[in-house]
Amino acid sequence: MELQALLSRIVSVNGKFIEQAQKRLDNLTKPQGSLGRLEEFARQLVAITENTMPELDKKVIFTFAGDHGVAEEGVSAFPKEVTKQMVFNFLNGGAGINVLARHAGAEVVVVDIGVDAEFEDMKNTCFVSQKVVKGTKNMRSTSAMTRDEAMKCIEVGIELANEYAKKGYKVFGTGDMGIANTTPSSAIASVLTGKTVDEVTGRGTGINDEIWKNKVDVIKDAIALNKPDPSDPMDVLAKVGGAEIGGIAGLILGAAANKIPVVVDGFISTAGALIAYTMEPKTKDYMFSAHNSQEVGHKVMLEKIGLKPILDLDLRLGEGTGAALAMLIIEAGLKIYKDMATFKEAAVAEKQS
Amino acid sequence: MELQALLSRIVSVNGKFIEQAQKRLDNLTKPQGSLGRLEEFARQLVAITENTMPELDKKVIFTFAGDHGVAEEGVSAFPKEVTKQMVFNFLNGGAGINVLARHAGAEVVVVDIGVDAEFEDMKNTCFVSQKVVKGTKNMRSTSAMTRDEAMKCIEVGIELANEYAKKGYKVFGTGDMGIANTTPSSAIASVLTGKTVDEVTGRGTGINDEIWKNKVDVIKDAIALNKPDPSDPMDVLAKVGGAEIGGIAGLILGAAANKIPVVVDGFISTAGALIAYTMEPKTKDYMFSAHNSQEVGHKVMLEKIGLKPILDLDLRLGEGTGAALAMLIIEAGLKIYKDMATFKEAAVAEKQS
Repeated sequence: MELQALLSRIVSVNGKFIEQAQKRLDNLTKPQGSLGRLEEFARQLVAITENTMPELDKKVIFTFAGDHGVAEEGVSAFPKEVTKQMVFNFLNGGAGINVLARHAGAEVVVVDIGVDAEFEDMKNTCFVSQKVVKGTKNMRSTSAMTRDEAMKCIEVGIELANEYAKKGYKVFGTGDMGIANTTPSSAIASVLTGKTVDEVTGRGTGINDEIWKNKVDVIKDAIALNKPDPSDPMDVLAKVGGAEIGGIAGLILGAAANKIPVVVDGFISTAGALIAYTMEPKTKDYMFSAHNSQEVGHKVMLEKIGLKPILDLDLRLGEGTGAALAMLIIEAGLKIYKDMATFKEAAVAEKQS
Repeated sequence: MELQALLSRIVSVNGKFIEQAQKRLDNLTKPQGSLGRLEEFARQLVAITENTMPELDKKVIFTFAGDHGVAEEGVSAFPKEVTKQMVFNFLNGGAGINVLARHAGAEVVVVDIGVDAEFEDMKNTCFVSQKVVKGTKNMRSTSAMTRDEAMKCIEVGIELANEYAKKGYKVFGTGDMGIANTTPSSAIASVLTGKTVDEVTGRGTGINDEIWKNKVDVIKDAIALNKPDPSDPMDVLAKVGGAEIGGIAGLILGAAANKIPVVVDGFISTAGALIAYTMEPKTKDYMFSAHNSQEVGHKVMLEKIGLKPILDLDLRLGEGTGAALAMLIIEAGLKIYKDMATFKEAAVAEKQS
């Protein structure tokens, strides 16, 4: 009910702002359109924020962490304990996302939404404890989460979006941590795009042929057993999804409702984005796709949503690392738009007609 | 003779450093290879600098400006005066390169190597006056430059590389400004890759079909008249090149000789890079290709050199704008390499074998 109210607040961006931004871009001292996608990013920021001089001074990346019961099927190259260990690594500032977020001038907020471990007396201000499940259940044997749990994950994301919008943050990035989470992401990709499991299942953190075949079987079994309904994204999230994927979906819904641009990281984040998009396609206007992941299922999900990734650097780490880098490029587009001289200001002759 | 001495100083990078860098990368808290090209950039920086902990704290982009006699053939959408006007725009900080260089933390040095206008009493510390020609001659009627002039352009670039290496700059970027300069760049691309003029000639700053056909004819005529020798890059640069293209080629040669990484911008810069590469193929080890330009001839030159561009954002402005953005990504790779925690430091379990 509350979710329905939020979804109804999400509107398409207003084309009037795109036109206004284009007008300014065309007066800058460069051939029209010559800064390509940088100009596109500026237009989109103006349209999302409904502000002809938007700011991106406060940036935050949310790294949602959760465990997966399906890890016991041997689908990952890393042991499950790594999820918890990596949360500590995030909080100590030593992970890839910390390094790249610092480079991009973004804060990192680590959200325990489903880790199968306790973080007691955590005083770190970058840590948010919003545990919905202590790891999902093994989706090969049963539903990964109940529908209520899936809904709660979405709500955690929405509430974070509302909170950080209120705090004045201007752009959000999504990120994930969860050993085995390419498995539910591939399941979501298959169910919501209609592609076969083989077509959307990749190597995750680096598995061999044998483990890959097993991973495909596990996903096929989970879909056959749970029969997720493609027309009901909450059902898909509950049955073959994950807590962190739900948090990401909620964050994107909340970003769109608050008219805040959201940079969607790679494969797992895009599974969350596809859940959000299936709930409300207008969310697309608020999303930037950070990069083209090496995971094979990523592209089909991006095509389904209609997003073109900003970077293509063979990344497959997750955490929000691609989102951090893409923020730097999006910000470059905004600076071009705001800071370049116009032909008139610079006394430069325009194109001959 | 002096050039020969410099060329003989250019050596291939030492694979030992690549291995050393790889070892560190493989111990960082991420699946091996999961940061894709960021890891490649780190390895390359270590190998170029022969330093296992390189710095990129001092960055500079050289924007070489020159005019082109061939502009009188009506090959560009903009009048020739714009070259001079844009030099003033650069020095006032209002151009695209200024905005993006600030974003990347890089300085901009504007080099008048061939502008057909005087910049008297220019006090701006970012301005370098090294005029070799007052615009090239119209290559449809005669050789664009003499061989001596072409050599001088190369020397200007080499001397700048030597000077800024001595000043402690850690990475160079290339850039260009010159109305009509996609015309000589396409000519160079055709002569040095063996592709037809049609295959390597694009729309420059935005010309229509009719002007494009004329541009192709002009380039074909210039090549037929001057008969540049593909085995003699100095001959190609002199007959159908440009002063700023020679400066860029020289900068790249100088960067390689000084073991300094050089980020090659788009189409015009890559024409310069191809001249440098043809003189000494080992220069390739020191180059990063910033981005995939919208100009059609760019890709064939990159393939000839063996470079894979970092960004693909539909840019076609030049000036060094792509180089500035790419520096941010290369720097991200270095920060990953230097600043991430190792598995041991973070007490994170490694991949199961």
